[in-house]
Amino acid sequence: MSDTDDSETTGVVYLVGSGPGDPELLTVKARRLLQEADVVLHDKLPGPEIIESIPAQRREDVGKRAGGDRTSQSYTNERLVELAREGKQVVRLKGGDPFVFGRGGEEAEVLAEAGIPFEVVPGVTSPIAAPGVAGIPVTHRDHVSSVSFVTGHEDPTKAESSVDWSALADTGGTIVVLMGVGKLPEYTAELRSAGLAPETPVALVERGTWPAMRVVTGTLDTIVDARDAAGIEPPAITVIGEVAAYREELVAFLRGRGDADATAEPGDDDATAEPDGAESPDGGDDA
Amino acid sequence: MSDTDDSETTGVVYLVGSGPGDPELLTVKARRLLQEADVVLHDKLPGPEIIESIPAQRREDVGKRAGGDRTSQSYTNERLVELAREGKQVVRLKGGDPFVFGRGGEEAEVLAEAGIPFEVVPGVTSPIAAPGVAGIPVTHRDHVSSVSFVTGHEDPTKAESSVDWSALADTGGTIVVLMGVGKLPEYTAELRSAGLAPETPVALVERGTWPAMRVVTGTLDTIVDARDAAGIEPPAITVIGEVAAYREELVAFLRGRGDADATAEPGDDDATAEPDGAESPDGGDDA
Repeated sequence: MSDTDDSETTGVVYLVGSGPGDPELLTVKARRLLQEADVVLHDKLPGPEIIESIPAQRREDVGKRAGGDRTSQSYTNERLVELAREGKQVVRLKGGDPFVFGRGGEEAEVLAEAGIPFEVVPGVTSPIAAPGVAGIPVTHRDHVSSVSFVTGHEDPTKAESSVDWSALADTGGTIVVLMGVGKLPEYTAELRSAGLAPETPVALVERGTWPAMRVVTGTLDTIVDARDAAGIEPPAITVIGEVAAYREELVAFLRGRGDADATAEPGDDDATAEPDGAESPDGGDDA
Repeated sequence: MSDTDDSETTGVVYLVGSGPGDPELLTVKARRLLQEADVVLHDKLPGPEIIESIPAQRREDVGKRAGGDRTSQSYTNERLVELAREGKQVVRLKGGDPFVFGRGGEEAEVLAEAGIPFEVVPGVTSPIAAPGVAGIPVTHRDHVSSVSFVTGHEDPTKAESSVDWSALADTGGTIVVLMGVGKLPEYTAELRSAGLAPETPVALVERGTWPAMRVVTGTLDTIVDARDAAGIEPPAITVIGEVAAYREELVAFLRGRGDADATAEPGDDDATAEPDGAESPDGGDDA
């Protein structure tokens, strides 16, 4: 790729989903693009196994600045445009799918406004995959006509939650909360106030598909205590609805990273994510 | 793998998501398992490119019986158990993700009840990926705190729709309808009755990520006419909400199968799916 600033040599930006963390759940296309890219811009959410598979000289961590402060979204946006104008083939690697609570839409807008060619490469989304490998189908024909995804960790500049928990409860479908460890007490209470039964099954899947994956199950009434007893930390996915009880039926025969042994293991420190969840809103759907 | 019926040699079943149809959107793990499996049970939903990449002698089409009738779900369930008891490594390939409106949950239950080890291999889900490659982010920080997925094609044995369109409208989030081409007039009318504005943007993505992908955009008021004018047929994804208007802003710089040229092309007959959509409820989330 040319290094000039000539618009004739404009590069391209791929907005790529990394999937939920297991390197084998990268798409064939994502893996190819990670091998071919001149530069990969990433944060922590793709997880250590995937990030460490990219040669260090070809990756830039836009999750942290050198001094330890957060990188602003505007810096990331500018860097994408700058690298593409240098003629680079750039991968912007996002946890999960780039267009699910990952600010991929904002990055696409910035690229289009700057006249940079870009392509969207969907990824396996964590709010489906993490429950899935744990034996929890987010839909089930006998129980569920819809599944809704919400984020428990909204834009901190918003004054109050814009999530209508009551309407979500009224859908009668599965509710999956991303980045929802910290605010679990608040939204389980809101869902109970909205009329969901206290015995509604709830599951927490911590670091879904990662080697240190853990699963905790309970009900709207018991899940906060279960979270505290197990010490569940971000990134984790919360599943609320009848489907969350399916794991019990399935787990004895479940293999892979969702199996019983993996579930019972304590967290692996090497894979521990930012405990404060502060990185989540920028980085993708993987928390 | 052994061919005996001894339970000591029980095989394993992988419930694998094929993704939305583009073979490069298979996961690395799905591609590996398709190469290693003794038998792949599939229907039409993974799409012709992926199905034809599997050697014919190692695949069984459970979407159609020899006579042209539909294969029953119970046949598929029995066949999975039978093959695993023969010691086979079996892939059950589902369109999209196996646990999103794909009856993967039912198959997992059958396997657990029969004592067959199984593993869930998540896939890229069509209701996110098809809009994504078309330049439509299903969430956007400025507009959307939730996204809900529903099926427009429910279990035909159910007397009436159990989807609460009014509650979905009240969430204020994006609504994505799978298998929703045929009933588009009904649910757009229900959403208008529930209070969504007639000018709410709507997009239809036909055969998302397939070579013959097409996109039609409009509003709750105009999308049925737009569907008819374009002759949109299943499989297609319907996106309802402000995000459906983003494509207009992005499409000039969008590359890949979501680009403007691909969109403008008429359908490719080789890739045409079952026009009656009758296969959808059994096969996965890809319709």
